[in-house]
Amino acid sequence: MNSFGQRFTLTTFGESHGTAIGCILDGVPAGLEFDEKFIQSELDRRKPGKSKFETPRKEDDKIEILSGVFEGKTTGTSISMVIYNNNQKSKDYSNVKDLFRPGHGDFTYFHKYGIRDYRGGGRSSARETAARVAGGAVAKLLLKQVGIEVFSGIRSIGNIVSEKTDFDFAKESLICSLDPIKEEAQKDLIEKVRKDHNSIGGSVFVKIKNTPKGLGEPMYNKLDGALAEAMMGINAVKAVEIGEGKDSVFLTGYENNDQIRSDGFLTNHAGGILAGISNGDDIDINIYFKPTPSIFKELKTVDKNNKNADFLLKGRHDPCVAIRGSVVCESMAALVIADMLLLNMSSKLENIKKVYN
Amino acid sequence: MNSFGQRFTLTTFGESHGTAIGCILDGVPAGLEFDEKFIQSELDRRKPGKSKFETPRKEDDKIEILSGVFEGKTTGTSISMVIYNNNQKSKDYSNVKDLFRPGHGDFTYFHKYGIRDYRGGGRSSARETAARVAGGAVAKLLLKQVGIEVFSGIRSIGNIVSEKTDFDFAKESLICSLDPIKEEAQKDLIEKVRKDHNSIGGSVFVKIKNTPKGLGEPMYNKLDGALAEAMMGINAVKAVEIGEGKDSVFLTGYENNDQIRSDGFLTNHAGGILAGISNGDDIDINIYFKPTPSIFKELKTVDKNNKNADFLLKGRHDPCVAIRGSVVCESMAALVIADMLLLNMSSKLENIKKVYN
Amino acid sequence: MNSFGQRFTLTTFGESHGTAIGCILDGVPAGLEFDEKFIQSELDRRKPGKSKFETPRKEDDKIEILSGVFEGKTTGTSISMVIYNNNQKSKDYSNVKDLFRPGHGDFTYFHKYGIRDYRGGGRSSARETAARVAGGAVAKLLLKQVGIEVFSGIRSIGNIVSEKTDFDFAKESLICSLDPIKEEAQKDLIEKVRKDHNSIGGSVFVKIKNTPKGLGEPMYNKLDGALAEAMMGINAVKAVEIGEGKDSVFLTGYENNDQIRSDGFLTNHAGGILAGISNGDDIDINIYFKPTPSIFKELKTVDKNNKNADFLLKGRHDPCVAIRGSVVCESMAALVIADMLLLNMSSKLENIKKVYN
Amino acid sequence: MNSFGQRFTLTTFGESHGTAIGCILDGVPAGLEFDEKFIQSELDRRKPGKSKFETPRKEDDKIEILSGVFEGKTTGTSISMVIYNNNQKSKDYSNVKDLFRPGHGDFTYFHKYGIRDYRGGGRSSARETAARVAGGAVAKLLLKQVGIEVFSGIRSIGNIVSEKTDFDFAKESLICSLDPIKEEAQKDLIEKVRKDHNSIGGSVFVKIKNTPKGLGEPMYNKLDGALAEAMMGINAVKAVEIGEGKDSVFLTGYENNDQIRSDGFLTNHAGGILAGISNGDDIDINIYFKPTPSIFKELKTVDKNNKNADFLLKGRHDPCVAIRGSVVCESMAALVIADMLLLNMSSKLENIKKVYN
Repeated sequence: MNSFGQRFTLTTFGESHGTAIGCILDGVPAGLEFDEKFIQSELDRRKPGKSKFETPRKEDDKIEILSGVFEGKTTGTSISMVIYNNNQKSKDYSNVKDLFRPGHGDFTYFHKYGIRDYRGGGRSSARETAARVAGGAVAKLLLKQVGIEVFSGIRSIGNIVSEKTDFDFAKESLICSLDPIKEEAQKDLIEKVRKDHNSIGGSVFVKIKNTPKGLGEPMYNKLDGALAEAMMGINAVKAVEIGEGKDSVFLTGYENNDQIRSDGFLTNHAGGILAGISNGDDIDINIYFKPTPSIFKELKTVDKNNKNADFLLKGRHDPCVAIRGSVVCESMAALVIADMLLLNMSSKLENIKKVYN
Repeated sequence: MNSFGQRFTLTTFGESHGTAIGCILDGVPAGLEFDEKFIQSELDRRKPGKSKFETPRKEDDKIEILSGVFEGKTTGTSISMVIYNNNQKSKDYSNVKDLFRPGHGDFTYFHKYGIRDYRGGGRSSARETAARVAGGAVAKLLLKQVGIEVFSGIRSIGNIVSEKTDFDFAKESLICSLDPIKEEAQKDLIEKVRKDHNSIGGSVFVKIKNTPKGLGEPMYNKLDGALAEAMMGINAVKAVEIGEGKDSVFLTGYENNDQIRSDGFLTNHAGGILAGISNGDDIDINIYFKPTPSIFKELKTVDKNNKNADFLLKGRHDPCVAIRGSVVCESMAALVIADMLLLNMSSKLENIKKVYN
Repeated sequence: MNSFGQRFTLTTFGESHGTAIGCILDGVPAGLEFDEKFIQSELDRRKPGKSKFETPRKEDDKIEILSGVFEGKTTGTSISMVIYNNNQKSKDYSNVKDLFRPGHGDFTYFHKYGIRDYRGGGRSSARETAARVAGGAVAKLLLKQVGIEVFSGIRSIGNIVSEKTDFDFAKESLICSLDPIKEEAQKDLIEKVRKDHNSIGGSVFVKIKNTPKGLGEPMYNKLDGALAEAMMGINAVKAVEIGEGKDSVFLTGYENNDQIRSDGFLTNHAGGILAGISNGDDIDINIYFKPTPSIFKELKTVDKNNKNADFLLKGRHDPCVAIRGSVVCESMAALVIADMLLLNMSSKLENIKKVYN
Repeated sequence: MNSFGQRFTLTTFGESHGTAIGCILDGVPAGLEFDEKFIQSELDRRKPGKSKFETPRKEDDKIEILSGVFEGKTTGTSISMVIYNNNQKSKDYSNVKDLFRPGHGDFTYFHKYGIRDYRGGGRSSARETAARVAGGAVAKLLLKQVGIEVFSGIRSIGNIVSEKTDFDFAKESLICSLDPIKEEAQKDLIEKVRKDHNSIGGSVFVKIKNTPKGLGEPMYNKLDGALAEAMMGINAVKAVEIGEGKDSVFLTGYENNDQIRSDGFLTNHAGGILAGISNGDDIDINIYFKPTPSIFKELKTVDKNNKNADFLLKGRHDPCVAIRGSVVCESMAALVIADMLLLNMSSKLENIKKVYN
């Protein structure tokens, strides 16, 4: 299943070293101004090769729109967006063809499908996330119409934690750091592991502002549940927290309850979500990425015939996937909120009368 | 929407103090022996009032099967299961009727729907999870047929962390603790907050054994994504971790990569899932519950007209929802695995030929 | 899959001679007045045993509401409705236990599931349609709020075709006939086949009035496509026509095109649907039912071991299933339109602004 | 919603005169030999401009595969297929820009979306069916693996009905006629209406051979229901019949029941489907197409401001859409059967054991 969302739906395709990657977006309301430059600018935030903190693979990630837009506006029909792969020239895959790279999907894809595209990880490559960013960009165009905004940045690299939450700075930072002071130490750590042919984990913080009260389907497509799936489904993510998150176990009910005044909540331990539904406060999400499995050290593995082998990777890789993961988290959050915005429209009779009468 | 799963599908209904709660299970393969006693025993693990560590509300949670079973076996048609509410007698709701209890869904339900069943939280009550446990029990009957087992227990209460992982002990422990030594301190902490009219958070550990390699739809219904949604969607859950989880950010790639030998993985930082697909190793999940919002201390809130008010709860509540949450997590895990088991059947041509030729 | 609809969703359960049949309705907007008497009155239109033109099986078909309604209104949560079977007392099934009744689902259920509930056809019995009528009744309550009405009646019995379309008369007619003049001949034909231990086919006409322009998802959940599935999925239906239907093949484009004036269409060959979307004109559907397969004449069949056998039915059956099928068609039409009404809300940005600004 | 199918899923995009049309196929099992030439040959059957009986618009309909295939086989990931539009050069649309062409989707798209791509009908153009044929071709590759075959041909043009059912002849016939003797008269009728600047309706017959017993989800995704939706959703279709179809109303139960012998059914009035599930016999479907609404005669219509206007079409069109509709019906049938084949795999425990043990 390569589709995400119920009403604002993203379906993606493409392999790391295939002809192209891309998506079909379905359910985008008609009449939305389609700002192609904005979409490209979002893709540029994710594209590789912008600095030494990222994989040196060069890809323009130039988006082409094949359908669904007419005279600058969405028409309500499905929107197809394609990115042709440039930098997928034939190279020697003999060292990965029959071996499973530890920490990667090679082993599991082979066992699930009995066949795998071993070129650069094929479908399991994080290259697929470009399609998520394209879709998320369109979602943001919709969210903007009702005032909702989504922000993200790097909360931590290894054990170096951002103490500030400066989203403007994160947009400029080469490592998307939220903290102008901690950024240097975070960069140093990345550089250190990179030189050691190794990699390091990191975490991303996402904030959604101005969400209307009432978003989230309350039982099995709860807003927090949907965000958790969206984030955990991003390559290399191993943990997701909403609001107070893991630390909420240490609190008593009296400490953790967000008391209410007529001008709003006194605290936001809930992270903007109560019983799976948005309460109008900021939605706060922390997402934790494991270190890139692609490192340049010898590792023990097996081959297709389950024989022991040693594996030493060649190629190009990110020393810390959380960095380029930041905009991906932001995009997935935008997709979830856009979907919930449409789903919630029929929650009460009053809304139906607004639309039809 | 009140449905969970794609092929092995649970649809639930019911309010805390309505006539009944229950579910329809769809997609259960025909020919499965339907062990009603086992289902009841699973419900008994979750039912309230078993000890002072739980709400004193008395409910038998007696399951009735209305359809889908014939001569002791499933027939492939939808299975309806109903639990009538016994202990929902009329009482005085005047203090919750127009006020929003902080930390609860009252505020968000009202804003989403414009109307809410204020009796005991209505639909947003954790009472709904009985239907999940009933569904999960049937999922377990299916999983057993292919050797898969699911276990759970309390990892921590507040800051008191189980160091052992003894699932047999957890089944006997009044607080589902995984650790025979730490249990006492965990109980003491619960008792302390209970006497203080307060509550405390806690965490649950779930392990799934003997999962075949290959489960999980690899892009937007990944096994880890689906488990994250399943767990985050349980009442009061604020964080979910797979395998190494949050701590994976501290590791380097070399440390975190699970190297492979012909007889299996050398470590299991991945928690049994690579690229969203099961690798055959144990699946490890940690789930974090906030403290019960229902406490007996005065809290600031607003009423339906957004006027400030003070609120002091009456009623019956769990001092730590994680305890009864343990079997709910286990049940949701079973539902996810059952669904993935069915979804994966068509992953390769070879399987199709096995079934049709 | 026992669920129908995308947003206004009906999930049903139950066997002909099991404990109960029923449904869960999901996606019903909150704040709708829940007229239980109306729902019961719709069920009464479908229930068996009202005249000699129907099966003499006696069932009260008394509906019980288990959830989703509070203080007389829908709350936006799932609505569970149950009908307990009264007249399913144990009887001798030895003559159908191992034989496949020709024209019934016995043969196909056995081959699909390897097991079947042979009591009265089990799940494949048209008794399941009571749950559709209950769901359709709630859909009608919603449709009424925006002025949409659904009508039905018998167009033909065998070769005796109603020439008038009198829906008021159909509501009173024991055979739901649309034509006060032809009704007698239609009744005579039914009586004739009944006395001959035989059965006869018939057709139903459904008209939907006041549908807003724009309903129908235009590619793979088109309004006409969805109606076709809804109707063809009713037990015994073998053909569905929209508007001019089958006869449109005889027309030229000039004859068939519905020309337009500022006060509406000059004709309605289209049956109210263009390119899968409602055009605001009446939606006209004709539905064709095969003769009841249950007849009291000896038939050739095989048993479970594929050995030839002769079969002579005992029991109680409708001589013409189209009659009680009329209200079922009407109910399915209401469910489709309710679903499309909700789905269409997000078709344009303008609607989203109406709801959220 | 631009997606079709539950497990073998086709999602399409593209407008008649946009950049490209195409699709993403999801759920195709891994390991299937991907015969690109066959797919192209299927598209060639549908492509326009092959004879005077079709629109003279010239399109090569050359397929490009962007993903999901590796070393000649499917990999289990989503398959993207694109057809760039060649013959969509800018032309003068001033006469259709503000007017609604009678019989077309112009009127309904405008009312649903508030905006429409008026170039050649935009998304509502039957050009979209090329994507269905591409998807259907892949479905056929799968069906072939289990021996299932799908055939189609023209049953009637206007009132000239094929009496033979010669699928080999239909593949060669310029009008896909099933009857070598009637073909001439059918051609003459088309030529007559074409010269009169008019169009004519027609019908298609589809036969599916060697379907295993047991396909079809028995309540709301029945095999006949799914086929009805698939066919009714094709542009210009107004009626669908299964087996005996509309004429079954004239029969008695005794005549219509297909009696059974150990070597098969004695008749096939059911058209291969009982209770929504395949019985192993041939599946027979008749599909009825209205005359092409695009004719070159003056018609009454209104403009966007609902002012009366006269409309005279320019452009290129098929005199009888049923002809090119034949392969589209066949493709949709293949997609339905492929989907049902995958869905049915989990119907019984026995199958699950076959796959996992």
